[in-house]
Order: sequence, then C-alpha cells, then structure tokens
Amino acid sequence: MKIQPVKGTRDFYPEQKRILNYIFDKWIKVSENYGYEDFDGPLLEPAMLWQMKSGSDIPEQVYSFPDKNKKMLAIRPELTPTLARMVAQKSAELTKPIKWYSVSRCCRYEAPQAGRLREFFQLNVDCLGSESLLADAEVIATAIAIMQELGCTSNDFYIRLCNRKLIQALLEEFGIKNFQDVMRTIDKKEKMNDAEFKQALKQLKLNDKQIKNIFNLIKWDDLKKIDLKNLSATGKKGYEELNEVIKYLKEMGLSKFIQIDFSIMRGFDYYTSTVFEVFDKKQKYRALAGGGRYDNLVKDFGGREKVPGVGYGMGDVVMELFLKSIGKLPKLSREIDYFVVFMKPDLINGFLKYVYELRKKYSVDMDLMERNFNKQMNYANKIGAKKVIIVAPKEWKQNKIIIKDMKTGKQEIKDLGKFLK
Amino acid sequence: MKIQPVKGTRDFYPEQKRILNYIFDKWIKVSENYGYEDFDGPLLEPAMLWQMKSGSDIPEQVYSFPDKNKKMLAIRPELTPTLARMVAQKSAELTKPIKWYSVSRCCRYEAPQAGRLREFFQLNVDCLGSESLLADAEVIATAIAIMQELGCTSNDFYIRLCNRKLIQALLEEFGIKNFQDVMRTIDKKEKMNDAEFKQALKQLKLNDKQIKNIFNLIKWDDLKKIDLKNLSATGKKGYEELNEVIKYLKEMGLSKFIQIDFSIMRGFDYYTSTVFEVFDKKQKYRALAGGGRYDNLVKDFGGREKVPGVGYGMGDVVMELFLKSIGKLPKLSREIDYFVVFMKPDLINGFLKYVYELRKKYSVDMDLMERNFNKQMNYANKIGAKKVIIVAPKEWKQNKIIIKDMKTGKQEIKDLGKFLK
Repeated sequence: MKIQPVKGTRDFYPEQKRILNYIFDKWIKVSENYGYEDFDGPLLEPAMLWQMKSGSDIPEQVYSFPDKNKKMLAIRPELTPTLARMVAQKSAELTKPIKWYSVSRCCRYEAPQAGRLREFFQLNVDCLGSESLLADAEVIATAIAIMQELGCTSNDFYIRLCNRKLIQALLEEFGIKNFQDVMRTIDKKEKMNDAEFKQALKQLKLNDKQIKNIFNLIKWDDLKKIDLKNLSATGKKGYEELNEVIKYLKEMGLSKFIQIDFSIMRGFDYYTSTVFEVFDKKQKYRALAGGGRYDNLVKDFGGREKVPGVGYGMGDVVMELFLKSIGKLPKLSREIDYFVVFMKPDLINGFLKYVYELRKKYSVDMDLMERNFNKQMNYANKIGAKKVIIVAPKEWKQNKIIIKDMKTGKQEIKDLGKFLK
Repeated sequence: MKIQPVKGTRDFYPEQKRILNYIFDKWIKVSENYGYEDFDGPLLEPAMLWQMKSGSDIPEQVYSFPDKNKKMLAIRPELTPTLARMVAQKSAELTKPIKWYSVSRCCRYEAPQAGRLREFFQLNVDCLGSESLLADAEVIATAIAIMQELGCTSNDFYIRLCNRKLIQALLEEFGIKNFQDVMRTIDKKEKMNDAEFKQALKQLKLNDKQIKNIFNLIKWDDLKKIDLKNLSATGKKGYEELNEVIKYLKEMGLSKFIQIDFSIMRGFDYYTSTVFEVFDKKQKYRALAGGGRYDNLVKDFGGREKVPGVGYGMGDVVMELFLKSIGKLPKLSREIDYFVVFMKPDLINGFLKYVYELRKKYSVDMDLMERNFNKQMNYANKIGAKKVIIVAPKEWKQNKIIIKDMKTGKQEIKDLGKFLK
C-alpha cells in the first residue's frame, strides 16, 4: 500500500537537498562573516508563547496539540518568540550585543500555494542589546550580502525600507487614530487591487481625504515630501532614525539597493522603528525576507530588562522559486573525488584498507553491485567522480595504481605508497 | 511572565550549538567521504506510517494529532519509515546503490532521562539496493570512522556484531518457537538483572534448559561454539553472512573494533540479517548507534519491488554525554578572523565600505555599543578575535591601518589597498 506524504511538505531527495544546502551555505557563510553566532531553540514550544504574541487565542496557522498532561504544545511557526524567550531567560548573563543567527525548521498550517508550504526553513538574523542604528544597517547589509552571494544584483532585488514611528506619525497627522489596524491593512495591500484596498480602508472608518492621503503616501519613494514642521516628536524621531540607517547603508556602498517605501509595514505589531523587506524587482513574488527593529519584544516575552533588538527572517521556499525564475540557481551535480574501479573482483579485499585510509581525506566510492569493469567506469561517470583509481592485476603486483582524470581522460600510473602520502 | 520551555527539549545557546555543530560536522564529513548523499524528509508524516510499522496502533511515544481534516499527523520519531516511503515511491528511477545519509531532527514522547530527550538529532546512514555484504561492512565502517573522527579509539568503543538469521536458527535449535518475543526480551536484557531476565523468559513459556541455553548464548564472543552440523539452512546462511561481513571489516583493518555478540538483537522486527551496535567500552551508556540489514522494509512500506538495505541511526544526545565523559569533547570557543577597532567614532563612517568588502572573505566584527577604545579591545578579545584591525586617526590619513595579532601581540602597519587585495 502506498502512503502519500502530508500535503504542503517536501521530500528532499538528494538533488533537492543539494539546492537547500546551497541556499543554507550562503546564509551561514554571510551570517558567520558578519560575526553572528549559530543558535537554535526547540521545535516544540508551549503554545502559550504564540497566545502571548497574538494577545488572544493560539493563531489558526499554528500546529498545536495537547501532550499527555493536557498542556498545549505548538510546533514553532517561526523562531522569533523562541529567540525572545531564550534572551529573556538569560539576558543578564549574555554579552551584548547578542548577535545570533539560525537556520530553523518551522511548520505553519496554511493552504499550500506557490511560495508557501506547511513546512519550511527560515534564516533568522538578529542583533539584540544595541540601540545603535548601525545595528539596523548591519542587519540589512547581511540580507544584501546574502542576495549577492546567491548571485543576485541590484537588477534582481532591492530593499524596501521605512520606519514605523514615522509612518505612525504621518497617519496620525492625517487624523487617523486606529493606525495599527490601518497599518495591517496597508501590509496586505499587495494582495488587493485599488478598489478592494479603498473598500478595506473605508471599513476602518477612514474618510475620503484620509484614503486619498494613504494612496499618496504609499507611493512616496523619498523623504522630501515630508513636512517636518507638522511632524510630531515621535515622527521626527522616526524620520531621524530612518535617515541615519540610510546614511550607514550609503557608507557601506549599498545605496543602489535601498528604496524608501511607505507601503511596507510588516504584519507584526512588535516592530517599533526600522522596518524592511527584501523584494524582487519584478515583484513576482512576495517578500524574500522581512524584518525590523523590535525594542520591546524581549520584555514582552518575560524579560526582566528591556533588550532592544533588530532582525529579520528569510525563507527557503520563495528564495528557491525566485532564484530559479531569474536563472541564478546553478546546476548542482553530485560529485566525488575518487571512484575505485577493480579490474577483477578478487582485487577488492587487498585494497579495502587503502580505501579506508583514503576516505579519511577524500570522498571515495567503489562498486557495491558486483559490476564489471565497464559498468564500474560508467557508474563512476554517472555519480560525478572527478578521478578514477583503477586497480589492475599487473600494476597492482608492483604496488601501483592507475589514476584516470575523468575530465581530461588522462591516465597516470602511480606508486600507491606515494599516492597515499 | 516567564515561560518555561517544554520538558525534554533543549535551548541551543551558541555554546551548546557549537557542540552540536561539531558532532554534525564529523557525521557529515564521514558520510560524504564514503559517497553517501544528503537527503531529508518531512518532519510531519501521516501517522499511518507508524501504525504500519508497529502493525497496530500509533505507538505511545509518537507525537500525533489530527489536522483540520481529521487526518492523523505524526512528528517523526525516527527517519527510517520516511526513508522507506521515499525509496518505495521512486525505487524504479533511483540509481542503485542508493547511498543516503541525513542529520534529522526527531521528537519522541518519552520520560526525559539521561541520554534520552523528547527532541533529538539523529544521523542515518543507509545503503539500499545492494545485497552485497560489502555494503554491510561499509556502513559499519562509516560508524567506526565517525567515532575515530570524534577522537575515539578502540579503548573507548567497540562494535557489537551479530546476525539475525543465525540467532533465530540457534533459538529454534533450542526448541524455541516464539523467537520474535524472545529476541525482543534479549534486546531489553541491559535494563534487567539476571533474575529479572530469567523471569521474563519464563513468562514467555521457556523451560529451564532453554533459559540456560540463552544465558550461555548471550555470553558467546566467537563463532567457535556453533555446531554447524545441527544448524538449519537459514542458520548456515546467517553464519556465512556474518563471517563475510567480518572478513571485509578485517580487510579494512578494523578487526580490533569488532566483537561478536549474541545479546544484541535490536528492538525492531525489520532486521533480517546483520545487526550491530556501537557501544562504549565502559558500558556506561546505552548504544551510541545501532542498525542492521532490512531486506524487506521498502516492500513493507509500499514498494513495488524488494529493495534490500542496510543502515543505522546514531543520536546526538548519548554521543555528547559519552564524549564529555571520556574527555574527548574539545573546548569549542567563539572565533572571529578580524575585529575592527576605531580609535575615534567619527572614523567609522569612512571605513564601513571596507568592512563590507572584508566580510565577503573573512569573519569580521566591529563595535555596535559605542564603546571606547579599551573596551573595544577587551570585547575583541572576549569574542575570540584572532586579529584586530585598528583604525587610528594618524595612520588612517595615510590610508593605513594597524593589524594586531591577538595571540602574539605583534602589531604591523599596513597599506589598506594592499591589505584588501
């Protein structure tokens, strides 16, 4: 009887796993190069962690279930609450800044669709304990560096950048009081046409003038239109913060990737300042990454002290689709350093100890299917052997082996003792 | 409010994650060097997969819960059924032998105790599609090579090796019919004293003679006591298989690690031939790894054809305890190639673009806490910076930087342009 895998999950056969590992390797390399440390939390967390985050029930898309003591457990749908819990638990002992990254496996109960699955991997890059906006710029720079490592240029992607304080102040300036609801609606704008968006804002009791103002605001791509005189103190602070982040990014040489964008809000309420998204230029996909500054999160999750932080998440699913669509996913073939071919089966036994030695240094494979010489050679080729070691009766009597380069076809006879050194 | 993590789960702060990564790196290196390919399956599988395996209900220790369509899902407690499902799904297309490994995250609902947690990582190394006993020897060799890579010698660990067919034939020779039950009881012997073990066998309706025979059998450490004349055809086959595996391991130079042991059975019913365990010499911990040959598994999990296989699982939890106990877990400190120290804060901006460039090649960190010079130096030391780049007003005017080696204390003034090349 055949068993179907669970909908929205993936089987990673080696060729799929190579793609995943390719993306992971870039994520890890850049994170490490920026001085971030690898961490991880449990896959299973108390469901309460997401109740706290949502402020009410366990959200629909969280897989949750009771354990044998009737405690509700959740499979993490994201890493941020775990990060906040872990930092809150040890905030006094941890050296600041806390610079952590993680490639974490998460599950979310959603209708599977292009770019959204029920199981996925996510890179989280977070810097906690520093209020400096240099931290915001650094975190954004890691996202840009990852995109560059993946072969993407400013023709392929850009960073949408804004500041929550500034957006909030502008909305307040328009006379909007329910700005949290309005921000959440603006965040969903991508999924709506203009009429639907207008309707959604109307439902939030906004008048025509306010709606017109919002339609204008989300088209702004610089800060020149902002009337500083009318801006509240919070708004001015946001304006200055945004300018400072931009200044640092410019100093890093990254101006060409940055676009001010008043339409990005990020769904989560916990962002307090900088918000940003990595977006494809063709706008075919949803955000490739998104994050921002969350100065109250750790305290909200049980921390004794306030630990300001900034970070983002970047998922594997959209990333793979995006890289494929722009032709930036390289062909990732199987490779092996050496394949040992035996001209006669009785040569195997005497040579096994050298295979064991070679495998301490190189990737080495050999036949396990009792194949004849030609079939061994074909198989070596199929699995991407760079070189083949041929153990042949005549040469082997003199402790010599034949090394064949599979690319050039060149063959050399070598003394085994020298070869092993 | 403080939230406690779920019992039996672990928070991997960077210092713990470094240990995990150290073990993973050895697992991966050896698996790759033996020509095994990385794969993975979903964390969530249909619970049916474990019902099929157990032959009845979903086992107690599997976390299972209904999805919104009332289908029962399970968080995988092990990877083998997923492996069998994936191979069964594509067995005709897959090139043989299928040599796969995976470092998979699994959950098991058990009472947490030393060496057993509710969340753990497991290496699986499997070779499918070959009936050659050379495959069994190769798989066992990977386990030995991993232990050696982790710094362990034949003083620290050994391989317990046996063959299911042979054990079964010997039990039948003793007149035992319910050998599956008896084998499962022998597998649990470690947890019992002699009296308890005797009692357990009595409950399986074994007579005194049979019990005595079993007590003798599990002490055998060679094959000399076996009376080949009385052995059934299956028994003889098992005897020959065991001898052949031993012969290959000997040819690999691994005799010193191998111990024939009639007390190892492996709990799972699916093993058909070779069975083995990696055990610590002091016998302080349960098995560090265990596996064997399972020639019917893929067919049992929905495969159209029989795909013989051999493989094992090796967990992280016991491994870490074991390595610590024998003093083989190295000190794993944080490390960074360069830390950039600014003598004056106003030098930061002009230098940020070079930091961005350096981070393409090296791990580089810099201050985000507005620390003064001395505190920056202390911090650089604390996070394990190998070298410090000092940006000082006078030198910087001439486009020069000071490189300090944190180990030797030696300082050099270098031209930035040359340094960046």
